[in-house]
Amino acid sequence: MVGDTIGSRLIELGHEVMMGSRSGANEKALAFVAKHKQGARAGTFADAAAFGELIFNCTKGDSTIDALKLAGSAINGKILIDVANPLDFSKGTPPSLIPSLSNTNSLGEEIQKTFPAIQVVKTLNTMWCGLMVNPLLIGEGNHTNFICGNDTDAKARVKALLNQFGWKNENLLDLGDISNARGTEAVLPIWLRVWSATKNGAFNFKIVS
Amino acid sequence: MVGDTIGSRLIELGHEVMMGSRSGANEKALAFVAKHKQGARAGTFADAAAFGELIFNCTKGDSTIDALKLAGSAINGKILIDVANPLDFSKGTPPSLIPSLSNTNSLGEEIQKTFPAIQVVKTLNTMWCGLMVNPLLIGEGNHTNFICGNDTDAKARVKALLNQFGWKNENLLDLGDISNARGTEAVLPIWLRVWSATKNGAFNFKIVS
Repeated sequence: MVGDTIGSRLIELGHEVMMGSRSGANEKALAFVAKHKQGARAGTFADAAAFGELIFNCTKGDSTIDALKLAGSAINGKILIDVANPLDFSKGTPPSLIPSLSNTNSLGEEIQKTFPAIQVVKTLNTMWCGLMVNPLLIGEGNHTNFICGNDTDAKARVKALLNQFGWKNENLLDLGDISNARGTEAVLPIWLRVWSATKNGAFNFKIVS
Repeated sequence: MVGDTIGSRLIELGHEVMMGSRSGANEKALAFVAKHKQGARAGTFADAAAFGELIFNCTKGDSTIDALKLAGSAINGKILIDVANPLDFSKGTPPSLIPSLSNTNSLGEEIQKTFPAIQVVKTLNTMWCGLMVNPLLIGEGNHTNFICGNDTDAKARVKALLNQFGWKNENLLDLGDISNARGTEAVLPIWLRVWSATKNGAFNFKIVS
């Protein structure tokens, strides 16, 4: 769903998108292709890694490392925009965070450590996917999107894409290197509870100072 | 520092405050008494538990359970406003969360489980203490304070005190029972990183929807 939402918005903005999957002919990927007149393709993770200039990681956090291994060497040197979270559904509702990927580690860091040839930029993971690609849906777009990653040029390129989605630079808060994913992924436990209390997922956090 | 800030504000509002400590004559507690013309006292944790109608837990998260044990039976039946966080300073900077008190547990829950005769209300723990007691310092007071706890009447009493601090009801988000402290305590990892990136602790999160 997250991949479809982001991919569809990218196509609307004039980009071409390939949705990768394990088999290359995933049912949801084929549906994504079918609903767009042009600009949408489906392929394996390796196909998508080769096709894309920018790669979005929209896999589940517990599958991300395996999916990226399947992408192979085609992904080396590319920017990976990691919007995923290491949710652990095995210990009840709401989900907790996968212990090995939280607190003193994070999914963003784990990807960067495992694939040093990728430039990982963590962003957008603290909100519902509808807001990721259309922040103007609420509060005139004035709420906060965190970004972190080790490479300044990669972050600048991602910020430019975020601007296309409707994010104003004043609402992009660059926290620094990828270790700050420990902070942004830890937003999920409070996000899930605000959602549960308000019954509304179309919200975001804004830094007020 | 948190206890002094909250205690001083309570005295300003006309309340009487006893600051508890292990020895009963803690240097900071005596300084707190000395700087107020009236309304301030110092005592042991047990003295403070007996004196207070409402108890604020401003101890460090790794010491809270021990401090409350020292308070003894005098605390039974009282409302404990828990503003502390289970920070772990043993694994570098910024601190992480104590593993046994995070993710699938929380300090707020641990207090409630260990001391079932206390009514634990978790609130104010997601911001700098200056804002806890004076939300009007930023954004005309329009930012979010989370609250959770098992007892509805206890939460109502705490909300009335928060109103005295300047919190408007529309900015108090009741998340439900004390297990939601897992969410509010998990705000610390992002709080610490926003503080580091902006060099400004006088900020808070606002839910925009």
